[in-house]
Amino acid sequence: MTDLHDRLAFFLATDALKDVQRANWTHAGARFENAAEHSWHASLLAMLFADAAPAGTDASHVQELLVVHDLVEVFAGDTPTYDEALLATEADREEAAGVRLMGLLPDDVHDRFDALWREFQAQETKEARFARAIDTLHPLVVSWGATGPAQALKTLTPTIILNRKRATIAAFPVLWALVLRLLQDAVDHGLLPPDDAIQRSDGADHAR
Amino acid sequence: MTDLHDRLAFFLATDALKDVQRANWTHAGARFENAAEHSWHASLLAMLFADAAPAGTDASHVQELLVVHDLVEVFAGDTPTYDEALLATEADREEAAGVRLMGLLPDDVHDRFDALWREFQAQETKEARFARAIDTLHPLVVSWGATGPAQALKTLTPTIILNRKRATIAAFPVLWALVLRLLQDAVDHGLLPPDDAIQRSDGADHAR
Repeated sequence: MTDLHDRLAFFLATDALKDVQRANWTHAGARFENAAEHSWHASLLAMLFADAAPAGTDASHVQELLVVHDLVEVFAGDTPTYDEALLATEADREEAAGVRLMGLLPDDVHDRFDALWREFQAQETKEARFARAIDTLHPLVVSWGATGPAQALKTLTPTIILNRKRATIAAFPVLWALVLRLLQDAVDHGLLPPDDAIQRSDGADHAR
Repeated sequence: MTDLHDRLAFFLATDALKDVQRANWTHAGARFENAAEHSWHASLLAMLFADAAPAGTDASHVQELLVVHDLVEVFAGDTPTYDEALLATEADREEAAGVRLMGLLPDDVHDRFDALWREFQAQETKEARFARAIDTLHPLVVSWGATGPAQALKTLTPTIILNRKRATIAAFPVLWALVLRLLQDAVDHGLLPPDDAIQRSDGADHAR
């Protein structure tokens, strides 16, 4: 094993994820969630909906991807789902942050973590796609029925949300049905304005 | 699959782990860590030190255990390592909390989560023991060289810390060497008072 110091330098750098604020609030408290809490909660969500993954998906590999999936935000910060300006530069910023963070790791563990991070970013394996679906589903679930200030929803509509989530979640029918249900509930409770996107998405889903 | 509502009720109850304050502070910020952040960071620590586990340890099972290991604190709260009064009632409080929390789960997923939680509590498998070692190692690592207020250390000595950590960590030589090194560094930097417990533990370790 390499000198412990090198692993510790990496590990203590990752501690900063606890101070990376996301754009969604926690369910229980009226405060924003941080990326460390989100990473744990996404891991739990993946375990709870493991049966929503396609046959042959390696659940333990999904877990590993979710533990590391937001690590680069230590240096790149969070990129809110609906912030078009930040989204335009996200890939470049996260690439630079990932190289910098993974560069802290000693050789004997570098390749493993670097490969996991790059696999999640590339979205080419079924595990990376399921992990990403869980990642983008998570804030919708946490926000469901929340009593927090709900700032983030004020400019959103079901159409906007579904257009943003479709690419990552719609391939997983159980998770997509959950999204539609959560949004319909939000409309029913006056948290989102009604439009016909939910009904259209539901029909499209069944037609597949 | 059971009705989604039952899984959501469980999942949203677990959100409260983000507001369970632990007795150790984060490394980056001068604030206490919460149990959700700790759960994620412990998962990452287990991945980083996977080669410190005995041969035959199922690393993916360790990950699952760490995701759920603190869930009962949603109802039972955190029990600080050095709080003797709370420690005396910990087992009973966590049993009641576990039954209550797992009782929210629908039948088709209940047994899996209930078994994971009970396996961690029972400490009878090698995965549960390694997960517990990582769990108790984590706050020592996070505190290492921290610039926070360090309140928790004010009444501690290397002897007290090593006596508390030995049962869970000493069986894993790489992790135990890390503990001794972290404590020696804390002594060298004036964060802990010097005593001979580190040298004695080091000798005992090598003598085995």
